Amino acid sequence: MTATEKNKYVYDFSEGSKDLKNLLGGKGANLGEMTKLGLNIPPGFTITTEACLLYFKNPDKVMADIEPRVLEHLKNLEQITKKKFGDKNNPLLVSVRSGAPMSMPGMMDTVLNLGLNDDSVKGMAEQTENPRFAYDSWRRFIQMFGDVCMGIGDEKFERILDKYKRDISRNAQDTDLTVTDLQKIIADYKALYEKEIGYPFPQDPYKQLFLAIEAVFKSWNNKRAITYRKINNIPNFGTAVNIQTMVFGNKGWDSATGVAFTRDPSTGENQKFGEYLSNAQGEDVVAGIRTPKKLEEMKKEFPKIYTQLLKTMDKLEKHYRDMQDIEFTIEKGILYILQTRNGKRTPSAAVKIAVDMFKEGLISKEEALMSIDPFKISKLLFKSIDENAYIHVLATGINASPGAVSGKAIFDPDTCEQMANAGEKELILVRPQTKPDDVHGLYASSGVLTQFGGKTSHAAVVARGMGKPAVVGAQDIEIDEENKLFRVGETEVKNGEYITIDGTTGRVIEGKVPLIEPEIKGEFSELLILADELKVLGVRANADTPTDAKTALEFGAQGIGLCRTEHMFMAQDRLPVVQAMIMARHQEERQDALNKILPMQKGDFYEIFKIMAGKPVTIRLLDPPLHEFLPELNTVQLEYQELKMTNELSKSLLNSSPLDEELKKKSKVISLIRSLSEENPMMGLRGCRLGIVWPEINEMQVKAIFQAACELKLEGIEVIPEVMIPLIGMISELEHVKEQLVNVAREIINSYNVKLDYKFGTMIEIPRAALTADEIATEAEFFSFGTNDLTQMTYGFSRDDAESKFLPIYLNKEILMENPFETIDQIGVGKLMKMAVDEGRKTRPDLKCGICGEHGGEPRSITFAHNIGLNYVSCSPYRIPVARIAAAQAAIEAKKKK
Amino acid sequence: MTATEKNKYVYDFSEGSKDLKNLLGGKGANLGEMTKLGLNIPPGFTITTEACLLYFKNPDKVMADIEPRVLEHLKNLEQITKKKFGDKNNPLLVSVRSGAPMSMPGMMDTVLNLGLNDDSVKGMAEQTENPRFAYDSWRRFIQMFGDVCMGIGDEKFERILDKYKRDISRNAQDTDLTVTDLQKIIADYKALYEKEIGYPFPQDPYKQLFLAIEAVFKSWNNKRAITYRKINNIPNFGTAVNIQTMVFGNKGWDSATGVAFTRDPSTGENQKFGEYLSNAQGEDVVAGIRTPKKLEEMKKEFPKIYTQLLKTMDKLEKHYRDMQDIEFTIEKGILYILQTRNGKRTPSAAVKIAVDMFKEGLISKEEALMSIDPFKISKLLFKSIDENAYIHVLATGINASPGAVSGKAIFDPDTCEQMANAGEKELILVRPQTKPDDVHGLYASSGVLTQFGGKTSHAAVVARGMGKPAVVGAQDIEIDEENKLFRVGETEVKNGEYITIDGTTGRVIEGKVPLIEPEIKGEFSELLILADELKVLGVRANADTPTDAKTALEFGAQGIGLCRTEHMFMAQDRLPVVQAMIMARHQEERQDALNKILPMQKGDFYEIFKIMAGKPVTIRLLDPPLHEFLPELNTVQLEYQELKMTNELSKSLLNSSPLDEELKKKSKVISLIRSLSEENPMMGLRGCRLGIVWPEINEMQVKAIFQAACELKLEGIEVIPEVMIPLIGMISELEHVKEQLVNVAREIINSYNVKLDYKFGTMIEIPRAALTADEIATEAEFFSFGTNDLTQMTYGFSRDDAESKFLPIYLNKEILMENPFETIDQIGVGKLMKMAVDEGRKTRPDLKCGICGEHGGEPRSITFAHNIGLNYVSCSPYRIPVARIAAAQAAIEAKKKK
Repeated sequence: MTATEKNKYVYDFSEGSKDLKNLLGGKGANLGEMTKLGLNIPPGFTITTEACLLYFKNPDKVMADIEPRVLEHLKNLEQITKKKFGDKNNPLLVSVRSGAPMSMPGMMDTVLNLGLNDDSVKGMAEQTENPRFAYDSWRRFIQMFGDVCMGIGDEKFERILDKYKRDISRNAQDTDLTVTDLQKIIADYKALYEKEIGYPFPQDPYKQLFLAIEAVFKSWNNKRAITYRKINNIPNFGTAVNIQTMVFGNKGWDSATGVAFTRDPSTGENQKFGEYLSNAQGEDVVAGIRTPKKLEEMKKEFPKIYTQLLKTMDKLEKHYRDMQDIEFTIEKGILYILQTRNGKRTPSAAVKIAVDMFKEGLISKEEALMSIDPFKISKLLFKSIDENAYIHVLATGINASPGAVSGKAIFDPDTCEQMANAGEKELILVRPQTKPDDVHGLYASSGVLTQFGGKTSHAAVVARGMGKPAVVGAQDIEIDEENKLFRVGETEVKNGEYITIDGTTGRVIEGKVPLIEPEIKGEFSELLILADELKVLGVRANADTPTDAKTALEFGAQGIGLCRTEHMFMAQDRLPVVQAMIMARHQEERQDALNKILPMQKGDFYEIFKIMAGKPVTIRLLDPPLHEFLPELNTVQLEYQELKMTNELSKSLLNSSPLDEELKKKSKVISLIRSLSEENPMMGLRGCRLGIVWPEINEMQVKAIFQAACELKLEGIEVIPEVMIPLIGMISELEHVKEQLVNVAREIINSYNVKLDYKFGTMIEIPRAALTADEIATEAEFFSFGTNDLTQMTYGFSRDDAESKFLPIYLNKEILMENPFETIDQIGVGKLMKMAVDEGRKTRPDLKCGICGEHGGEPRSITFAHNIGLNYVSCSPYRIPVARIAAAQAAIEAKKKK
Repeated sequence: MTATEKNKYVYDFSEGSKDLKNLLGGKGANLGEMTKLGLNIPPGFTITTEACLLYFKNPDKVMADIEPRVLEHLKNLEQITKKKFGDKNNPLLVSVRSGAPMSMPGMMDTVLNLGLNDDSVKGMAEQTENPRFAYDSWRRFIQMFGDVCMGIGDEKFERILDKYKRDISRNAQDTDLTVTDLQKIIADYKALYEKEIGYPFPQDPYKQLFLAIEAVFKSWNNKRAITYRKINNIPNFGTAVNIQTMVFGNKGWDSATGVAFTRDPSTGENQKFGEYLSNAQGEDVVAGIRTPKKLEEMKKEFPKIYTQLLKTMDKLEKHYRDMQDIEFTIEKGILYILQTRNGKRTPSAAVKIAVDMFKEGLISKEEALMSIDPFKISKLLFKSIDENAYIHVLATGINASPGAVSGKAIFDPDTCEQMANAGEKELILVRPQTKPDDVHGLYASSGVLTQFGGKTSHAAVVARGMGKPAVVGAQDIEIDEENKLFRVGETEVKNGEYITIDGTTGRVIEGKVPLIEPEIKGEFSELLILADELKVLGVRANADTPTDAKTALEFGAQGIGLCRTEHMFMAQDRLPVVQAMIMARHQEERQDALNKILPMQKGDFYEIFKIMAGKPVTIRLLDPPLHEFLPELNTVQLEYQELKMTNELSKSLLNSSPLDEELKKKSKVISLIRSLSEENPMMGLRGCRLGIVWPEINEMQVKAIFQAACELKLEGIEVIPEVMIPLIGMISELEHVKEQLVNVAREIINSYNVKLDYKFGTMIEIPRAALTADEIATEAEFFSFGTNDLTQMTYGFSRDDAESKFLPIYLNKEILMENPFETIDQIGVGKLMKMAVDEGRKTRPDLKCGICGEHGGEPRSITFAHNIGLNYVSCSPYRIPVARIAAAQAAIEAKKKK
């Protein structure tokens, strides 16, 4: 027998193995594998995916072809189990399950207890000495078969069930139903079936079986499954059908059922763990009527089987090279393994298990790394809410900056600052949205909550920069600024009352809540070292301040991939100077202001360079539109209006107008803001366009960068500045800006008389830059993909607007399967990125390419970055461990594919 | 001798011809061609582009190689002209000119009178009997040579000249300088030269000549020329150098100089036209001291030469197959042709000449069409300002809708409407910007002028839709709404005072101005018929109303390529219903409003379909964000503020607050507008996203389209509706929207029981749609490129913001050579378009592709559309004649290249 044996169609479990996944599906192959391992698996067989595909071409022929083979295998099952299909004394019951080569929602799942009918239910009742269980199984089978195989809506069965339960009492449970009740229900179920389908419920178990097989086949091509395959690019494999003997843990006190883990899933400790119930079915555990016993108690109750189980557990863990979650049943003193799979575990357990197993020599370091889900690792790095705690979620907003924090809700930045100065430490700033003027309040707080705005809103960006938790755009809370409170539904939260925000999930929670401190154990560091040995991609940090830079280094950053200079402009003590610069009436006034900013910027760069000594630091020149540094037009206009009315009142009453001067000033500010305001600021005067219109701003920044770098050089510290010009769309822009700035840089380097390695490069964030990357690369010494903006413009999505207005609807209607701002859209945006890398390197083979958008810390995007040949990813300091692991995984996977 | 004769380096004019353009440059080839024609061209020779290119590799060798050959050709010139280089009695003077294969700015242009020195100037003075002329020529030569060949700044020479002129009088002209003055200036010039260059001005004419030749060579690689070549993708041809004998029309009364056209350049009539001056140089004509005589007078003054000239003119027109503009000089009774070129002409003359020449059998219809500049044709379709009129331009804004109009400036829409109702016809609405609420004023006016906004602003879009002239974003005018006037500089224009706006150029002009009516003569129609015979591209119209559709048909539209439905929503009587629809609190209320709009939309479509009977009509579903239909947030907020203060005043003074109810209502409107408002509406909730969030809007529109179509079908009228879904970026969006709408369409068609051909297609205006066109084409039956939005997103330019904030600077600094919103950026945006067409047709070979952005009416974009294989372009009705001609030209050019 080989994988290519044609038209065999049906395989006994003993013929299967994990290599036959395409033919037998994942489930079938695994059952085969366990059978081969010599474990006692309830016997069964698998109908191949090949049969499924042929079924769609010629259903009658395929059903005719497989019928004798299925019957042959069934006979075999009867012989092994010494039971008989449809027998009223000792009936053979089977489960029927679909099983495609890749796990796939939307397909038919499982039918249990197939083979039950009015006769065999009696045999079951007798054997289990539990007629209630037997009739309930019979009821459930009719319902499952009717719903899953024949498409009768489940709610129709539930309606019947509810009626009988209500007849008993208002809050009756399934378990309150007697055998007589169940028999009545079964009669009603059968009547429903006949009405819906047109003929009676099949009593013949063979008929049941073949109908179920066809239902599994058909489910492969139902609409949801097709859509899922299309979206996830899954080939038309076909699905296999698994038919397996049912075993029962409730056939007496020599029977039992349980679950076991080969290691502790919550701590990762290398000790076995499990629970079981004697004379019970799995459902009894779920129903929670009886409390399960600890695995160790089996030692006394089932001593032989206990030893057998422990051996099996060891065998399975070694075979599957991972911690296993095993379902088992003891039927009349015989141990059956029903299922084994890699066990779910907490993030910290995952890390410990991986590192332990590697150290035990059980798995390679590649396997250790591949066993980690990088998405979950970030939980280890932030405070999180104790999952066992009772919490009252008030609202859910956008998870803008991770971590959980409890604190007093404070509704204005000034109060926040005063309270912090007075020693208060737990403060959460709550605002409709934040503006540059609020930054001192943000500094003073431990977290921020806003009613409006998205992941790129001011509050989100600043909080991420400061590493503070933030929930933004929580539109369900209604802030009443005047009265300093917010309302959500019936609840009112007043100034100074405690709330908790969870920036990892976006939840806003009432009151103080128990938090779990992040823990980075020894194993975590060990794992990261393994990751570094395997990864190819560099991992850099997005860091705007010396504090960020220090954190980044601690987490293992190999450089800074994005240092945003606007953050420095926003600092509270600088904003007035920056505003003066913007409001300057002529170039000299502007130059004056810039001269004041220069030493501040230089100081920042000096500190950051010093911390990152010897590592590259990519500094992005000023990017946001200038009006972001000014107060909001609306606010100023309303102030003006108020002043004006007061003035007029004063004029009419007192015949004096004392506010004339102030009005004039305000009016000028309004004109300025208006002249800078834009219809679509995202696509307006920002990025390199600023530098082209006001070259003196860029010039000041480059002076600051190179003066700082040269001074450190003189002190003997290695500095590698990389100047990044944002929002380039045309080679002519880059030529224009670069020429000016390279001259400035050279002059400074010459004046300090040092040797300095530096680079000038560009963001690739405008589609046109990607499309003309061959040209851009003539001047750019590196490309850094700004995947946020690139995604915005490639989709034509303004992120803030999209996420608050229609992306949720898109995700809900499955027009989008994922938010492209969270994981890179590899089909569209990715096509541009690949094009840019390939074309750019045609011009400049050693072109360094990286990502500095938020996707740089997202595992699937990191895999993509590896696959298109980027040199590095850059992400927020706290994402660096995740990125190191994801980068290692990407390298391992790519190597495997080769 | 052949074109490939290597290392020949120097060609006599008699050896040249137009086929040798690459070797001899455009100018050299043309001089050769005329010499070959047997015309009396002042003799000369050309140094090849080959020599120029080699010069950059090895300058010394090339100069050594060409020297003997140049000297040989010079000797030849001396023999023919019987003059001697540098001779003090009868000097040979030459001009030295660069001449690349393609005309190119930035290179050295011309040096005249080379060969003059302290000796030969005397010979010239004697021969011309005009010492002033001779010494002035000598002065000019030093200045030109010093500036152009040696790089001494012209201003340094001018400073010397100015000093001498000021010595004479305050307003002295060049012509006031005496021979003695000139001699002093020459001495100073020579001193300046020596000071700047380090050695004296070369008296040796051979030295002058070789320095000039080198200067021409070098100018090929100066920075400006390199940049120009790079931007315009011109290969590194090298430049040729032309050395030609000077002739003088001022050597006595048997000499003359003049200009002649083979046909009348202002009317196009087939009659010769020209002017000349006896005993004069070309400069005398320019100086305007003497009035030139009509060409006919030569019949008496130079009878023989007159006949010779007429013959020459006929010969040249026949040879060049176009109306010629000829420069000639008579030197001592001998006629020299200095230059011939295709003559400049008015647009109407261009049309007449082309059609006449075709009818005369002189040129083919292809040549007739290629002789037309489509950019200028549009002048024939709109009123324009008489170019001879004196006008006072107050400001220049953005030319948003073509045509010129004079009218009373009216500052508010209500007054405008009242005056129009009272019979006033000449009204120009002047507003800071317009909003939907102003539409009645726009209807009542003959044109609109705004202070703010760009080509896609409300005023611009609506005015273009109505075919009325519009100048928008004229930021230099300062509107004072309160006092109903605008100020610009010192001028004040009050309500009711006349102004003129020119929507073709963007000018705002004081008072009433004489206008020229558009004239479409017989020849124009004939030309368009020729164009239709040759063009391959279809030409459709962007038309939103029955009136538009009628105009489009008159201009020859083959269908409607874009019918925007939002225009219908904006109509004054519908806006309240539309606003009610938007403000609906639940779906039923929204459906009610939609039910009211349905019959209106259906009526519009009915009319348009009827007019376009048998031709395809592409209807775009609602595209703009809904807040565009609501009043501005600012306005409502200010109103609210005012109400509130009045209310509070009343409360404090009268102890009653009568405005509470109104305040509550306003507050709700504010919330709604705020909830719909977006950071970047261009990339927000609009296009197909509207239809996904509120499917009932699309559904209503599709109902209206298909009900109208079916009713006409029943009346026996052919209708071809094409439903266009805007802003698609993902195939899943299109699938989702199309499925819903196709069902609606089918139901209606079935209910009317008719057969109807229809299509569902999409705009390609999101980069991602172009990148995934292979997927999109599985559902889209046609692609229509929305090149406005595609350009916005590919560049990351918000058009309105860019055009008012930084595009002018980009154009000025030559970072952009052209505004990509005016002509398609073929490198970036074009790459996406080509990709989309190619990939789309891989999926669906018969995919119909067109342009419906504004570029659809722009000649170079039309050529591009032809070249990438589009099926049609669609443009505003008034651009259709231009598009038909441009489409024909594109087809002709493409055929030529094959």
